[in-house]
This record gives sequence, C-alpha cells and structure tokens, in this order.
Amino acid sequence: MPRINGERLLADLRRIADFGRYQSGVHRPHLSPQDVESRHWLMARMREAGLDPVIDGVGNVIGRSTRSGPRLLMGSHTDTQPRGGWLDGVMGVIYGLEVARAMAEDPETKDLAIDVASWADEEGHWGSMIGSKSFTGRIGEAEIDAARHREDGSKMRDALAAAGLADAPRVQLEDGRYRGYLEAHIEQGGLLETSDKRIGIVTAIVGIYVYRLTFSGIQNHAGTTPMPIRKDAGVAMMKLYNEVMETFPNLSGPRSVWTVGKMSVEPGAPAIIPGKAEMILQFRDADKAVLDRFEAALLEIVAAHDKRGPCTVDCVNLSRTMPTVMDDRFLDAIEDSAADHAPDKHVRMPSGAGHDAQILGLKLPAAMMFVPSIGGISHHFTENTADADIVLGCQVFADATARILKGN
Amino acid sequence: MPRINGERLLADLRRIADFGRYQSGVHRPHLSPQDVESRHWLMARMREAGLDPVIDGVGNVIGRSTRSGPRLLMGSHTDTQPRGGWLDGVMGVIYGLEVARAMAEDPETKDLAIDVASWADEEGHWGSMIGSKSFTGRIGEAEIDAARHREDGSKMRDALAAAGLADAPRVQLEDGRYRGYLEAHIEQGGLLETSDKRIGIVTAIVGIYVYRLTFSGIQNHAGTTPMPIRKDAGVAMMKLYNEVMETFPNLSGPRSVWTVGKMSVEPGAPAIIPGKAEMILQFRDADKAVLDRFEAALLEIVAAHDKRGPCTVDCVNLSRTMPTVMDDRFLDAIEDSAADHAPDKHVRMPSGAGHDAQILGLKLPAAMMFVPSIGGISHHFTENTADADIVLGCQVFADATARILKGN
Repeated sequence: MPRINGERLLADLRRIADFGRYQSGVHRPHLSPQDVESRHWLMARMREAGLDPVIDGVGNVIGRSTRSGPRLLMGSHTDTQPRGGWLDGVMGVIYGLEVARAMAEDPETKDLAIDVASWADEEGHWGSMIGSKSFTGRIGEAEIDAARHREDGSKMRDALAAAGLADAPRVQLEDGRYRGYLEAHIEQGGLLETSDKRIGIVTAIVGIYVYRLTFSGIQNHAGTTPMPIRKDAGVAMMKLYNEVMETFPNLSGPRSVWTVGKMSVEPGAPAIIPGKAEMILQFRDADKAVLDRFEAALLEIVAAHDKRGPCTVDCVNLSRTMPTVMDDRFLDAIEDSAADHAPDKHVRMPSGAGHDAQILGLKLPAAMMFVPSIGGISHHFTENTADADIVLGCQVFADATARILKGN
Repeated sequence: MPRINGERLLADLRRIADFGRYQSGVHRPHLSPQDVESRHWLMARMREAGLDPVIDGVGNVIGRSTRSGPRLLMGSHTDTQPRGGWLDGVMGVIYGLEVARAMAEDPETKDLAIDVASWADEEGHWGSMIGSKSFTGRIGEAEIDAARHREDGSKMRDALAAAGLADAPRVQLEDGRYRGYLEAHIEQGGLLETSDKRIGIVTAIVGIYVYRLTFSGIQNHAGTTPMPIRKDAGVAMMKLYNEVMETFPNLSGPRSVWTVGKMSVEPGAPAIIPGKAEMILQFRDADKAVLDRFEAALLEIVAAHDKRGPCTVDCVNLSRTMPTVMDDRFLDAIEDSAADHAPDKHVRMPSGAGHDAQILGLKLPAAMMFVPSIGGISHHFTENTADADIVLGCQVFADATARILKGN
C-alpha cells in the first residue's frame, strides 16, 4: 500500500491557507484575487507532482495523471465560505494531490492514475456547484452568462475575464475515463467526535427540499385594531411553524433534519401589526421517500392554514435536490482501509451537507470519506481538525484508492 | 353656544396639507423644512385669530389668548408620520384654532380664553412626545441634548438650530393657568365606523408595556446538526410566542391588545440554524391591573422556557406607559354636546393609541374626542375622514369647550 507523507500533506494545507488568511481561517470566495492566486499555486504543486494541470472556463483546476493504468478522479474544492475554515474543501483537494504523490512513489502503485480536481465555486457564491455541474454537462454557457454574485450582483463572466479565463474552454467529463470519483471532507458536524470515531464512511449525501412560505394579512395599528378583527401575518407564520415542528418528528427518519433559518415580518415595527411574513423552510434526508412524506405533510398544513385564515399562506418550492447514494464497492474499500488503520474508529453515516460528490455521483460511481470536525464547527474561521486525524484520514484514503484501482 | 365655521375649518386643514403634501396625504416629520414652514404658517393664522403665538425651544407652537376669562388649553400635533395622513394630529390643532375664533365671534363666549398648542414631535422622530413632556417639565435640556433622529441618527439640537430655534426658550406650563386640556383626534381605528357612530368620547388612553425577548442558542449547520442536539433560537422564539398567544386571551380585558410587530433570527440564512432570535412584544390596556396581569404571565412563561431550555431566554422591559384616565366632568360636557348635535351617534371608548393628552393629563384635568377614520386607516397617506364628520366634530368640541368654561 502507498505510504502518504504526513509532513508534506500538512505543509501544503498550511501553505494554501496563506491565500486569503483570516484569523485562524481563510476568506477565499471563488474568483476572488486570493482564490485565483491559490489556483495557480495549486497547479504548480500538481506539476511538481508529475500531474498535467489545467484551469478551465469556470475556474475548475484539474491535474491529469500521465500514467496509463486504471484511473480515479479525486478532489473537492479550494474556494471557501466568507471568513470560513482552513480545511473545508481544500483538505480533499490536497488529499488527492498527496495520494497521487504517494502512489507515484510506491513501485506497487506507480502506474495507477489519479486525476485531481478543485471544483469551482462549491460554496455557491455564483450559483450552485457550478464547477462540477459544468464538468458533468449539467449547465451550459447560458447559465454561466446569467450567473451573478450572490452578494454584490456582479457578473461571473466579468470575474472570469479578470482572472484571465475569458477564453478558457470548459473541461468536460470524458466517457469511460474514470472508474469513479472519491472525495474526502471534514465532517462539518459533531457525530464522529461525540461517538469517538475518526473516519466517517459516507453512505449517501442527503437530498434537500427548500420552500418559501409567505403569509399575507393586513398591516394595521397595534393599539387601535381589536384582536378579533386582526389579520396578523406574524401570528399566522408562528402558528404554521409550530404545527410543522409538532408534525415532522412523527414522519422523521433516524437522521432527518428540518430548519427555518430565515424568517421576517413586514414592516417590522413594534407598534404595527405585520401585514406580511415570510420564512424559508428546508428539510434533508438520505431517503427520497422521507422527503416526499415531509413535503406532503407540509402542503397539507399549508392548505389547512390558508383555508382557515385569517391570513393567506402561499408555499413555493425553491429547490429539490435528490439524495445521492454512494457506491457500495467504494464504501467497502474505504471501510477495509479504515479497519487497518483505525480499527473500531470508523462508522458509516450519511452526509447532511451538500458536496460535489452528489453531482459527480450522478455520472460516476462515487464515495466520500469524513474526518472529525473539532466541536462540530464549520463555515467559521475557528473550524479545525486534529493534525493526527488529517494524516490518518489521508492514509486511509490512499489505501482505499489503491484497493479500488487494483480491484477488478 | 359658539357656531364654528365649517368652510374656514376645512380650508385651513387643506391649506396646511400643502406643507409636505404626499399623494393624498402628508410627509411632514418634526423639524423637516416642511414642518418648520407649517409652524410659521400656523403662527400667522393664530395671529389673525387674535391669539399671541410663540414657537419654543423644542418646536412647540403655542397661541395664547389675550382674554382674561377662565382658560382651557387645546391642541394636538402638526407633525406627521412618514408619508402619513392629512388629519392625524393637525385636525386637533385646527379645531383649537377654529374654536378660539368661534368663541371670539360669539358675544356669549367672547371673554372665554383658549390657548392653542401644536406639540412638537408627537410622532416620535426624536423621542417620545418631547413637546408635551418638555411643556410639563418631564424632560430637561439633557434629554434634548441626547435626542437623535430615529432614522438617520442626526442630532435634534442641529435640527433645532437649522430651524432658528437654538436660542428659543422652552415654554413651561404655568400652575393654575388652565382649567384643563382638551384634544380632538381622528380615531385611527374602525370602531366608530363599524358601530355607526360619529363621535368617540375617550374615557382613557391605554397604557403600553413593551418588552424585548432575546433567545440565545447555538448557530450551526442545518444539514449536519442532528435534531436532538440542536439549540435553535428561532424554534425557541416560536414556542414562547405560541404560548403567549394561547395564554393572553384568558387574561384579557374586553379591549386588551398584544402584538409582536418585530422579530428576527440571526444570521438569517436558510441553511444555518439560528443562534440568536429576538422579538418585541407589547400589550395595551386602559386598566393597569390588566397590564400587570399580562406582565406577570409573560415573566412566568419566560422563566419556564429559560429553565426548560435548550435555549436561554432573556426578557427586558423597554417601557411601561401607564394608562391615563380622562376627566369625568369633561367627558360629560363632550357627551352632552354630542347628544345635542349627533343624538345616538356617540360612544364612550378608550384610545388604543398614545396621545399628548396622556402627558398633559398627568398635570391637568384632560379629555379627548374622536371622529371616525374611514376604513379605520391611519399612519398611511390614504387616511381620511368625511368632511361632514370633521365639521360635526368641531361643533361638538366647541360646545363642550363653552360648557366647561362656563361651568363652575
């Protein structure tokens, strides 16, 4: 089995964290100057590792192996959340680089081929997983023409031109090139830590259904409008939310989650009865049947509240991302490798967060592996993972890769 | 009894609506250029009516009668809400002016003295009823030094200087000068209209208790954080709000109202579990015992939720304005006058909204009278009252004034 070099792995992770360093984390949104710089640094490191790197028309960096043996695609993303962590995404990319290096250094594995990718904009500043969707043919030029920055509304085309990528072609997945796709990532939750495990073997990436609920009543004076004739949109929202929270536990799978992360009332003044209210509800599960059950219950609740009044309720589905089931053979390979290096410290689990593997998994056999997040923290500059866990995870990942590529 | 001149009354109301006209309403926040202009116009009209006007150090305009008979103070406010209505406040000021004119024109009442006031900033752009509070000695120079505009944070002192009032003294209530205070206003609600009445005799101005409730949980990823370990501040807020809405009806007086007009969650992103939530709850009643009952129940609910967790709840009282009971003898005078001019079309009722009369009423016998608001609308440029109701109201008000001043 290939032996990864833990010092080299950690040194690369620490070096790339210089691009956009923010306190103990990193601020490196896709196509920011720091992001573009970090992509060129990554390509140089790929070249040193014997890979042939290219940056494509949406910013994907793909380092292609010149070996002729059976081939796996590995990667994740190097862009970050605003003031995010130093490992979210980039760890999986540097794992790919280190595994490619370790393979090349081991006579037993030196002919196996690893292509390493950093997918553009996984964190969704310009859209939703534009990099992996472009690579797998799920979006075209029109979507990229239309893409605008979620915060400042600037055009992705202008940012691509500023990065020197106006004329770069978009790299497309070639049929038959890969046995599959592997991605490693920090867990971004606390399950591994709290259950004293060091390796998570991701069985599926959850699907996510998202809805906007709008409540319309009548805005009025909070002193002069008697309670019986009020049409308070804030009260209507609270009542419906309450019913959702009482109903969903009865329909839940073992790991279902549901969240209202955004809610507001208008006009939002203490002495004015809200005439309008809005909330965004999302739920996630690895099982589409559970998602459909939640949706049916939600629509039933909405219809009942809308009919009962006094406020009207409008429910619009904003997106339905389907669950992606990981490849069984790949999962077994990760599990066998974890058993060698971390006996009893590994567990099968779904991923509650979205990842590029759910896009690649629609075209290729795919699997993911997690390492623990300290305190379960992510999307924050204090995100971290123990060095020993980072190194262990990469070794398990290298072994699993070799197992998959040497298998029949 | 004095006969008011309806045409003159309506003409003055239409003329002053030119200062800051906005669609069918008026935009004339206190100390805006339009507000300052309108105060100088008002002083000119007062002078023409034989009153001796002054504008004081916070912008109060007070037109003092030169007569020597028994004296009443009458008025309301000429400042408006942003893009507000053409009658909210100013109608009561012009009623005072018209009553003073009608009294002077009638040999029977010509010696009775009416001082007419437009109280500064009733709509609270710089504070809370600064004008009437300054006049009755409830605030001093320090509060005015500290007063800043609720929207742009600019200093009231700078606006007063721009209006030429930097050196104007603040007029203070003189002990023994008045038999009492009278204020007329539009209802700002729909009770008169829906019960087919034309005159509201205000028995009390409700008290208002206001609270800020802050819920603290733990901000986390909406995909990777299992339901059982979540500390979702939005859920905590919704549950408490729900309990308030279930409990308060059992404690309510016949006209109690309670409102959450403002609520928010942080950070307010669809895929992030809120770590913090906040809402402003207020309740109003004319009976302090009811307000105290609500407060006790609220604090009990807060303590129970805080103890139960998983989020902590903090409840801070932001203000307690006590109910102000109107003077019985004044109410009888208004009722007798209403019975003459609008038999069976008058009703006793509390005011759900705050008014300067609640400040003056702490120092003087005070009473208020309402005329109907079409559709119950106020704080909006479409606010209106039928011309016939405006004229009728002023005649009732004039008769009541004469009754009070001629009484023993």
